[in-house]
Order: sequence, then C-alpha cells, then structure tokens
Amino acid sequence: MTKKPLLFTLFPLCWSLGAIAAPDIAELKIEPSNWWAGMHNPKLELMLHGKGIGQAELRLENAHGAELEKTFSGSSANYLFADLDLDQASPGDITLVLTLNGKELRLSYSLLERQVGSAERASFDGSDLIYLITPDRFANGDSSNDNVAALGDPADPDNKDGRHGGDLKGITQHLDYLSDLGVTQLWINPVMENRQQAYSYHGYSITDFYNVDQRFGTNQQYRELVRAAEQKGMGVIKDVVLNHIGSGHWWMQDLPFPDWINYADEPVYTSHRRTTAQDPYATDADQQDFASGWFVDSMPDLNQRNPQLATYLIQNSIWWIEFAGLSGLRTDTWSYSDKAFLTRWAAQVRGEYPGLNIVGEEWSTNPNIVSYWQKGKINPDGYVSELPALMDFPLNDTLLRAINTKEDWGKGWIELYEALVNDNLYPAPHNLVLFEGNHDTNRLYSVLGEDLDKYKLALAYVFCVKRIPQLFYGTEVLLTSPVEGRHDGLVRGDMPGFNADDRVNAFTGKGLSTEQQQALAFVRTLAQFRKQSRALAEGQLKHFVPQNGVYVLYREAPANEGKAAEHVLLLLNKNPDTTAIDMGRFAQYLPPGSRVNSLFEGKSFNLPAQLQLSAPVTLLSW
Amino acid sequence: MTKKPLLFTLFPLCWSLGAIAAPDIAELKIEPSNWWAGMHNPKLELMLHGKGIGQAELRLENAHGAELEKTFSGSSANYLFADLDLDQASPGDITLVLTLNGKELRLSYSLLERQVGSAERASFDGSDLIYLITPDRFANGDSSNDNVAALGDPADPDNKDGRHGGDLKGITQHLDYLSDLGVTQLWINPVMENRQQAYSYHGYSITDFYNVDQRFGTNQQYRELVRAAEQKGMGVIKDVVLNHIGSGHWWMQDLPFPDWINYADEPVYTSHRRTTAQDPYATDADQQDFASGWFVDSMPDLNQRNPQLATYLIQNSIWWIEFAGLSGLRTDTWSYSDKAFLTRWAAQVRGEYPGLNIVGEEWSTNPNIVSYWQKGKINPDGYVSELPALMDFPLNDTLLRAINTKEDWGKGWIELYEALVNDNLYPAPHNLVLFEGNHDTNRLYSVLGEDLDKYKLALAYVFCVKRIPQLFYGTEVLLTSPVEGRHDGLVRGDMPGFNADDRVNAFTGKGLSTEQQQALAFVRTLAQFRKQSRALAEGQLKHFVPQNGVYVLYREAPANEGKAAEHVLLLLNKNPDTTAIDMGRFAQYLPPGSRVNSLFEGKSFNLPAQLQLSAPVTLLSW
Repeated sequence: MTKKPLLFTLFPLCWSLGAIAAPDIAELKIEPSNWWAGMHNPKLELMLHGKGIGQAELRLENAHGAELEKTFSGSSANYLFADLDLDQASPGDITLVLTLNGKELRLSYSLLERQVGSAERASFDGSDLIYLITPDRFANGDSSNDNVAALGDPADPDNKDGRHGGDLKGITQHLDYLSDLGVTQLWINPVMENRQQAYSYHGYSITDFYNVDQRFGTNQQYRELVRAAEQKGMGVIKDVVLNHIGSGHWWMQDLPFPDWINYADEPVYTSHRRTTAQDPYATDADQQDFASGWFVDSMPDLNQRNPQLATYLIQNSIWWIEFAGLSGLRTDTWSYSDKAFLTRWAAQVRGEYPGLNIVGEEWSTNPNIVSYWQKGKINPDGYVSELPALMDFPLNDTLLRAINTKEDWGKGWIELYEALVNDNLYPAPHNLVLFEGNHDTNRLYSVLGEDLDKYKLALAYVFCVKRIPQLFYGTEVLLTSPVEGRHDGLVRGDMPGFNADDRVNAFTGKGLSTEQQQALAFVRTLAQFRKQSRALAEGQLKHFVPQNGVYVLYREAPANEGKAAEHVLLLLNKNPDTTAIDMGRFAQYLPPGSRVNSLFEGKSFNLPAQLQLSAPVTLLSW
Repeated sequence: MTKKPLLFTLFPLCWSLGAIAAPDIAELKIEPSNWWAGMHNPKLELMLHGKGIGQAELRLENAHGAELEKTFSGSSANYLFADLDLDQASPGDITLVLTLNGKELRLSYSLLERQVGSAERASFDGSDLIYLITPDRFANGDSSNDNVAALGDPADPDNKDGRHGGDLKGITQHLDYLSDLGVTQLWINPVMENRQQAYSYHGYSITDFYNVDQRFGTNQQYRELVRAAEQKGMGVIKDVVLNHIGSGHWWMQDLPFPDWINYADEPVYTSHRRTTAQDPYATDADQQDFASGWFVDSMPDLNQRNPQLATYLIQNSIWWIEFAGLSGLRTDTWSYSDKAFLTRWAAQVRGEYPGLNIVGEEWSTNPNIVSYWQKGKINPDGYVSELPALMDFPLNDTLLRAINTKEDWGKGWIELYEALVNDNLYPAPHNLVLFEGNHDTNRLYSVLGEDLDKYKLALAYVFCVKRIPQLFYGTEVLLTSPVEGRHDGLVRGDMPGFNADDRVNAFTGKGLSTEQQQALAFVRTLAQFRKQSRALAEGQLKHFVPQNGVYVLYREAPANEGKAAEHVLLLLNKNPDTTAIDMGRFAQYLPPGSRVNSLFEGKSFNLPAQLQLSAPVTLLSW
C-alpha cells in the first residue's frame, strides 16, 4: 500500500494488513475505506487496487444485509470493482472474502451507523458569512508537520510558491477569532494529499481523495476542526475538485481504464474557452478542446464519462460530508468537467443531503454564462443543472469597477445598479455567493488603491445585497498584493499571526496599523450586525437609481412567526465632502421621522428630512 | 382644419368641407381619415375634433353594414370618439350624420376594399439587406418643396442641424442604385409632418400622424415610392414613433384628455435608466421616472395608458401599412412606452398582418435587456412581449470593439466569438437586425480609424452572421463623422449626389476616391452574393474559436425542395501579412479537396490543405 489507510486510524476493529499473506494481493487498497448503512442511495461501488486483484473472486461473509451484485476487473488487472446493494444492510463489519489463485484473503469492511440528522443537515445560505482560508497560509499550528519527506515539496516559507507550513491545527486554534469576527462558515481550500514535487501548497493537485495531506494534519484533525467550529456556530465547506488530479496520484502509475484520464498518452491543454459548453454554434471539436484539455502537465484531466470514475467521485464527495460533518461544498472549475456527470454528481450528493448547498466556480463575468449552471434554469439547449449555487464573478467584477470608476452619467454606481437587472437570469440569485476576493483574485485593498473608504463601500455592498457574502482571509486586516495580472503566491500571503511570534498579529491585534484596526472594526461591526439581521439574511431587496454619487439599497424582512419586521437602509456615498440626502425619496419604505439605529455611528435618532452623509457607509436599521 | 386632409387627395368622393355649415362644427378633423372593410379586428374608433363636437349626436346612414356602438366626448368638448363595429361591413362610403345644437352635418367616410393578399403580405427576414435612409439627407429630388412656410424651420443646407431638402422623390429617383447595390428593404426615418420651429429634419417630432411632411412630399408620393420599390424587389419599412410627439402637434393646443400626455402641465425628463423596466428590485418611482419622463421639451411624452390614445396609435400603424403597402415596421425607443400597451400594439398590428416583421429599438449593449422584449421570451416577471425583432445593439458594440482591439488571449476576435453565446437569451436570434451603424451612431469608417481592411471585416460579419443585416446610407461610400461623443447632424451628412450636380456622386460613381470605389464594390459584391445565398439567408451557423488572428464562420443550408445544399465559409483575417490556414480544422464541414468559389478573388479552385490568406475577408462557397 502506498500509505496507511484511513480506516486503521478510525476503526481499529477492521481488517489488518498482517492478514494478507497471498503474494498476489500485496499492497491492497480499498476505497471508499468505509461506508454507512441507511444512505438514500443503496448502491455502493468499491474500488480495490492490488497486484492482480482484478482476477480475484469476491464473496461476502457477515454481510449484515449487504448484497454483492457483481464484480468486474478494470482494464488494468490490478483493479477490482465490486457493486454492493445496501438496501437491507445494517451497521456492522462485513467480511470481504477474496480468492485469487486458490488463496483466500479475508478483509473487514465497516458499515457505520449514520449520525442522527445527517441527511437533514443544515447548510449555508443568505444568513451566513463565508470566510475562505488557504490552509498553508493561515496559521502554522504545528510546525512538526511542516515537512513530510515522502510527500516531496519541502517547506520553504520565503518562497511565495512554496509550502509555508499552515495547517488544520492553526485554523482550529483561531476559531474564536473567526467567530468573534462574525464568520459563520469556513471554506477551506483543498486539504487532500498533494504528493507533488513542487507547487503543492494550494491543494488543487490531489493525489489521494481519501486522506488529508499530512502536512495539514490528519482526517481525524479535520473532523475535529469541523466539530469545534460547529460548537462555535460555524460550518465548514469543503473544496471539491472534480476536474483533475495531481500528476503524483497513484492512479497515474496504473490507470484503471485507458479512458480514466483525457488525453492520457499525451496532454492536450484546455482552450479555457468556456462559452463552448453553452454556445449553440460551437463546434464539437471546440467543445472538446475546452472540456477535455488539461490545465497543466501536473494536473491530469479526469474523464468523468467513465462510469466507474463518475461513481468514485460522487461517493468520495458523500464520504467526506458524512465522515467530517460538513455543511456544504464548493466545487472547483465547474464547467470544465463533463456536463452530464456534473448533473449526476450534484443530484446524487443532494439526493443524500437535500438541504445541502453547493457552490460552483464558473469564472466568467458574463451572468448569462454563470446562470446556465444554476439549478432551475431553463436552458434553450435543454441542459438541466442540479447545482444550487454559483460564485458571483460577474457582480464582483462590476462592484470593483463601479467603485473604482469616477461617477459619470453611465459610469460608477450606475454600472452596479444596472447590473442587478441580470438577476432575472438566475433562478435563485439570492443563492449566489458574492465575494470581495478569493485565492485567485488580487487583494481587495490593493485593487481599490489602498483607499479605506472604497474598501468600506465594497464590503458594505457585499454584506448587504441579496447574496451570500464571502470574505477571503486577511481582507479584514488589509492584506495587499500587486494588482496587474495574477499573483497567486502573493495574494495568498501569510496571515499576520501565521506564526505565533509574528510582529503583527491579526488574531491578537498586536502591531496592527491604525488602518488595519479600522478595517477590522468595520468588518466585525458589519458582520456581527449581519449575523442577527433577518433583513439582510432573507429580506427582499429594493434599490434606488444612484444620484449625486450616492447609491441606496433597502432590505426588508416582514413580520413573521412572532418576529417583528426588520428594515435596513444602506447608503453608499462616494463623495469626499458631506452630502445632504433628501430622505423623502425613501418615504415609501422609511417613513419620515422614524426612529432608526445608525450602525456605524453607534446611535439612534429620529430621522430628519435631510440626512448629512459624511461617512462612505451609513447603515440605518429599524 | 389645420391642413387639407389626406382623403381629399385620395378619395374625391368623400365628404367636402363645403358641406360644413354649422358654426359650432368648424374645422372638423376625423382620424383615421378612412378605413377598410374586411380587417381582422372589426372594431374601429374614430377621433373627431372640432369646436364643441363632443356634444354632438352621431348616427350612420348608408352604413354598408357598419354599426355605431357608442360615442363619447373627450374631457375636451372638442373631441368626439365614435366606436364602430365593422364585422358585417362591406366597402363603400358611409354617411356620418352629426347633430349639434339642432344643426345637422353630413360627412362621407370611406370604407375601402383591401388589396388582395394584404393580410398575408411578405415582410423582411434573414434573406434581406436593409438600407437605412435619413430622407432629409439622401437626395433632393424636388427643390420646390424644400420650404413650406406654414411648417416653420426653413431649409438651411449648411447647418448640420437644419433641413437640407432631401425628399421622397429623391429616394424614388435612386431606386436603381439601391437595387444594384443589393438592397432589398428600405428603412426610412420618419416622414410624417414635423411642424416644429427648429431641428425638425430628423422626423421624430411628429405633429400629424396621418400626413407626410410636405417638405418630404405627399402621402401619394410615399405610396408610389413603396410601389416603385416593390417593382424592383425592395420593401419599405416604416419608422414608427409611439413614445412621443412633437410639441407642435395640434393636440398640444387642446388635449383630448388630461392624461393624454405624461406630465402635461410641467415636463419631467426621463431618467433613461431602461433597466428599471425589467429590474426585479427597481422602485415604482424609478420605473415611472424612466417610462413617463420626456426626452426634451420639444417632445411631449405620450401616455399610452389612456385607452383612446392606445387605440389611436394602433390604428395609425395599421393604416399606414394598409395604405402604403409596407413590408415592415421599425419602432423607435421601444421600452420608453407603456409596457402593457407595447404588447397590445404589436399583437394588434400583427393580428392584422401575421407575417409582418417589426423591429424595435432597445438601445442597450446588454443582451439580457434586449432579449426581454422579443416575442417568445419567458421572462421571470411574467411580462409577455409580442415584438418579433430587435435591433442588435449588443452585437454591434462587440463587433466594433473586437475589430478595433489588438488580438490578445481574451481580446479581439475572441470577444466577438464569446458574445454569440448570448444568442441563447433570445427566442429568435436570427430575427435580430444587426447594423453596422444607424442615424444615432458614429460612422463605421471613422469608428474603425478609416481602415478599409477593418471596414471590410465589419461588413462581412454583419452580412454573414445569422442575423438580418442593416446598412446606413453612405456607409458604402465611406461617409465619415467624428468618433467621440454624439454628432447626429454630422453622422447624417448629405449623401454624395444629394444634389444632382454634386462634385462627388455615389449614385453615378462620379468623383469617388479609390477607397470609395473599393468600398462600394466590396459592398455590392457581398450584397449581391447574399441576395441569392440560401446559406446566408437561412442556413445554420457554426463558428470556430479564433486562432492566430483569424475568425472563421460557417453557414449551411441543407438541400431542400429540389434546391441543392449551400455552404459558406467566411474567414476574417486581422493579420497584415499573408497567413497560412490549415484547412483540416474545417474538414467536418468543408471536405478536403472540395471545389470552392472564392467570392472576392472571383475564381474557383480545389481546396488546398493550406489556404494562404492575404486579404482581410475570404468568402468560400460551395
């Protein structure tokens, strides 16, 4: 076996390698490493990998109601696939009896009992604030795991593209900071093993779908992080990669089937022309160039049209939700995978967890392209998507441009105002995740010219428009980056406090500049308000044509089940000088003389006929 | 009466003003000035205007099967509305008997016989080339009508914003030129009366919905122009203005109802924020600011929510189609009118002429906004449009940008390629009118830096993509304009040959520069090819991801009803140097070694494995 399988750690009653005597069945791997009784889908397909195992016969003993439907070899004789029906199965350890060349091997395979309420788990929605963490760069909680020789790519903290040593323990240590900030969901970049010689820190070159990279920690630590976060009111969203693997994946030495990987013999690179997946006039060849090509040599492109691979990926996603207790998924490079598979993957994952939210990445600034993938969209080509949420790249792009552009008749706020008409393209615009930035985009504060007023305007919009807001770690303390072109290694800089003895430490507040303190206080004030605001979580939206540099949005949650109605009026003001706003324009929603709370001023007052705006952001609630 | 009514000219058997003796019924106007028996909609509402006529009693004699359903006065007592049912009516002259203050007036009103096939008339579609004419600027066929003192705004040919003297006769004189150019449809800017003190040449300040401006000619000349064009294989598309009138309209002295005009007492100007008509989050006030506001003081905004006005406008559109024999309509500033009215207007006009195409102007570069208005679109707000076609402002914008932008990974041709994915927003993208320019946009040749190669690229795309192509007069001889901001008066410059003795004359070819001759030959070659090309008229479209500065489009009409299959491959080449193209990429559509015709090279050859592109535009057909 290439490494110690997970189930030894978790389920010590399972089979032991010591029992494997047959010379032809050395180094046996079985995935998923366990399963659960009582899943919605009663089918389970096991992938067994070991020398010559494709020729083995398999039967079950102590089946606990499980039935073996069939087995079959891969094109490689080192793979055996076993299809089980668990419809009548109850929790317990099944014995898998493998016979090859007259020799018998007995393996214990666990069907676990599900946690109560697992299928009905809550997920992320408009009431949440998502915080994205690049685990190698957030906090080094355990320096002893910075290097694992067998995995390659030794730690190199001074190299922007090298591993810096951040880990799950580092995140776990700072859950109080995150909770205090107002965060309610953690999206963590992939933590699965990346056994790559170089450039492995980002996690997107997965080489083992069932094990956390040892430099980040263990599967058990991952599960403990999820539980600890949950105790502080935060969920964890897993970053799923369906499109590709790392070139160091053990499959690459021995593919189950020749078509497991697109262009397995000789890489052909993706065109990245993602419109081809939807364009009614695209040629077949151009569609294939997009969807089947590789990103880079180190990322072989998976062919999800292979039915065993499709099942493998679906089961893997479900396994992590069930094992770790996740509250949602984020899926990388959504449209690059096979379209039919994507529908099946999302439908089957959500078949198990009907309330689970999944947000896909379609990195396009065209809302028409993004909306194509949202569940419920009626597409002219008949394509049916089952993906409930998408990252809102179009609105992120427009937001930053609108704030950075000088006001003019058709420029500035009006661009942002007019962009919202495109919400009619989405079946569920409120279920888009609007981010201020992520691990692939330049840093917000830098993009906005290190202007704290603009920074506040951008964040206030992200937090208050009818979306699920998402922060990137460190935005709250004004992390910077270059702004022209892409600078992944610099964008994903170390969090201040990454090492406990850092001179500047966001977690403790030590050494923060005045601007950083102001930014942190702004984010915390807004996020904590949002956390208890039904108006921002679920209220209807109205907005007003921007006038004189001021853009006003209104949210309203009606009285409901004994809860009082809640209202928010957000005034985004670009003017450097104090600007008088005639409040009569908003009287339909905010009656003259109403008693309002002004969040950032920290006071309540009776609404005057004119409001004097001096701050960039004014948030009134009542 | 303010002017001699049309029906005197056309129907000398009708009632004569000489018969009006009653002092209270002086200056009587009746609109529509006639109608037809056998229309699909049996209802007709007459508007009678004359001093005190609102109090008159009306009955019919010699009714020819017509029934008077009811009459009612406007809020102004000088208006009488009469609702007729013509379900059983036959052609003939009805006598309207009006009684007021004991005095009787007898008027003859004509119900004409419809032309055979009127309801089933053909219209414009993908097989056409539309040519837009600003009639004041195209050709002065009759200098005797350049000034009509009663209408104001005397001719001022040296003033870019003044009347230059072009007219219907000028257009009629040059129909051979247009036909020879390959034109099949004439869209002529409005020719209705514009009795305005100044800035009246453009025609959009209509002051009489039933009469051609005398400086352009007469109703009869308009009808003769349509007939003459038809004989040369060309249709005429009328420019319809539903949103506003000219301030010199006689209504403005005596409104039928106070709500005939929005903000009749004191103009409020439109915000021009057209997203408000669709935005799910727009406020009622912002929607009203857009749709009910005036453009300028000289253009009072019509309130089509008034039912009599709505009927008036619908009947007027139908009247012109039936009277003049039109092949289609173009509607100005579509979204600025009342949404419910727009649906009713289009449905009723097309109720009479089911095959009639109507193209609306929604001047937005966002295809989502434009597509909202196309018939068949399923809008999330439930709005149902009956407008079959729209001007393709988004694609025009992208086309020009794509050609003007240096090729780069995400710039240049790829922008144009990727824009076509938005065709999935439209129920009928092939029924969009793609223009190279119009009376409101700067001149193509200027926008493209007076680069003849870019000019050819733009026109070839407009003519070959799956759209209805539209040229603006003079583009074929490289008319120019400034390029920053708007320059209406200069954009609408005189056609060379506007006066028969012009030094340069596009119609005769006299004095054209080498570049102008090349441009004219290019347009003519392409347009004449298009005229007989089923592939370009109706063929399916495929296009290829642009590579190395070359963008390739393919059109194919399958064999059908004895017609052979037709194919076109268009290669748009931005490279200044000869570029070799491997034709293997297109082999699925264009088999290696095929015999092809090369339009601009004027020769046929067997397709080589590599094509050497030296020209900007190569069009192969087979």
